[in-house]
Amino acid sequence: MTRKLLLDVDTGIDDALAITYALSQKAGDLIAVSTIFGNTELKTATKNTLDLLSLFGREDIPVYPGASHPWEKEEWIVNEHLHRIHGYNGIGDVRLPSSSKKAEEESAPDAMIRLCREYQKDLTLVCVGPLTNLADALKKDEEALHLCEKIVIMGGALTIRGNATPYSEANIHNDPEAAKYVLESDLPLVLIGLDVTLKTIITGSDIASWKEIDTDKSELLYGAAAYYYTGEFGDVIGGAMHDPLAYACALYPELIKDSLPICLTVDLEGESRGRTVTDRDLLNKEHKTTQYALDVDEKAFLDSFTSSIRDILR
Amino acid sequence: MTRKLLLDVDTGIDDALAITYALSQKAGDLIAVSTIFGNTELKTATKNTLDLLSLFGREDIPVYPGASHPWEKEEWIVNEHLHRIHGYNGIGDVRLPSSSKKAEEESAPDAMIRLCREYQKDLTLVCVGPLTNLADALKKDEEALHLCEKIVIMGGALTIRGNATPYSEANIHNDPEAAKYVLESDLPLVLIGLDVTLKTIITGSDIASWKEIDTDKSELLYGAAAYYYTGEFGDVIGGAMHDPLAYACALYPELIKDSLPICLTVDLEGESRGRTVTDRDLLNKEHKTTQYALDVDEKAFLDSFTSSIRDILR
Repeated sequence: MTRKLLLDVDTGIDDALAITYALSQKAGDLIAVSTIFGNTELKTATKNTLDLLSLFGREDIPVYPGASHPWEKEEWIVNEHLHRIHGYNGIGDVRLPSSSKKAEEESAPDAMIRLCREYQKDLTLVCVGPLTNLADALKKDEEALHLCEKIVIMGGALTIRGNATPYSEANIHNDPEAAKYVLESDLPLVLIGLDVTLKTIITGSDIASWKEIDTDKSELLYGAAAYYYTGEFGDVIGGAMHDPLAYACALYPELIKDSLPICLTVDLEGESRGRTVTDRDLLNKEHKTTQYALDVDEKAFLDSFTSSIRDILR
Repeated sequence: MTRKLLLDVDTGIDDALAITYALSQKAGDLIAVSTIFGNTELKTATKNTLDLLSLFGREDIPVYPGASHPWEKEEWIVNEHLHRIHGYNGIGDVRLPSSSKKAEEESAPDAMIRLCREYQKDLTLVCVGPLTNLADALKKDEEALHLCEKIVIMGGALTIRGNATPYSEANIHNDPEAAKYVLESDLPLVLIGLDVTLKTIITGSDIASWKEIDTDKSELLYGAAAYYYTGEFGDVIGGAMHDPLAYACALYPELIKDSLPICLTVDLEGESRGRTVTDRDLLNKEHKTTQYALDVDEKAFLDSFTSSIRDILR
């Protein structure tokens, strides 16, 4: 049976590229997308997701909206740093045609729970935004979430400096309380953090071949990617394919060349708020709940990613 | 040819146990001990080292004194935290008989350089204190240090909270500038950090069999170990065998079950001073200079360690 995947996104340029990549991969069946605040506001993330699915003629895939703010806040305000990376509209200020499709009534956590019960080991959850939706689902029905194959998360900075602060990666930093709740659970987690996503950096030459395809889709996706790769680090090195890599590792686990079995927690206080780390007690726990990726085959991923996107843009 | 080892120590209870363990292992030939400030003052570390070697009738092993303070300080003052762990005399306030042997005139860095040139690939350096001696040797004669087999360091906290601060391990914290100089070099380093040493914790029952041996040596070593295992964490969990583990991993690399090839730097500023971490540029370097241990066979080590110490105490 083809693997089923639910992708939880805060779309976001690299989220948009992850969705596009997901649509291009016949080895997996993207059966649902859920949305969350993060790179942009919830409503923008939801609109971008609907519009993107429509662009590829995949309005059949339902979109479930989730949290509009972190557990400990009442709202989510997108800062200038995020605007620089993702643009004011979340996808590099390119204008996707508006979809006539609406988001589902069912919430993201409820959809996660229902699909876990329905597909069980045939389902993989891939969460590439803050972990609020996943934490809400876990709080509501832990048993259901244990039924799925595994949960692949783009999040964390373990051996490397963070991108939100020197200690914390943005997805974890954007809702540390929810992330701590998820990471301290015994769900079967696979973390794809900055320790590996910062190895998968696209440059202008990587995406140049997309532009040449010269379709409406290629122009839009190239435009978004070009915005991102010049904006993410504020220098010319390129942009990291955080979210597409997480989806790829969910579908092709052999891309992960090294991972560490570990039990993690999240710092909530002080300068290190959002830090993913272990401690003496967690180190000496027998059962390690998380597989934390420490090396990936970045060349295999980038080759497959750029060519798959090229194919779907034709 | 039997492997030759130089052990650089800030003796210190776990340093004393590392020296004792080294003397018990016929697979390796401890040809020199060098000393440094850290757990205690340089002069105390040197005296403890000489007295301990004398206790085991090994006054033939030369002791080379090194740095008395970090690069950026003029002196080294031992704080109350260290007194709680190592006692006021550095070895849990037990009284070792004074050795009549004196330390060598040659300095620790000069001895490191000379022995690297003499024994080359047959020599392994094991540094279990601050990295000042090693950094001084590196600065003086980098070529010589590249001749040895490898340099095993007890130091670092990569995936785990530190023990000096939440960010930093004590040996790195005690001279971050020297540690940065060493870690950013391309010496063949093996780091045995808190990520693994906090798995090798001895308890009262582990060392109880030493006491029963009822020799002068066993009474002294048991006394030191008992002081340490109740003092290190301020609770009853036991004491971590940081330094003995590093020596064991130098001699028996198969104890390291998982290690990460990585290029590390050390934070010098702010709250995270002393943090060992990588960054985007270091992550994308082709040649990784450091093997950072992430898992060890703690049971094999502790069994071998406690029984080896038992044997040498008879």
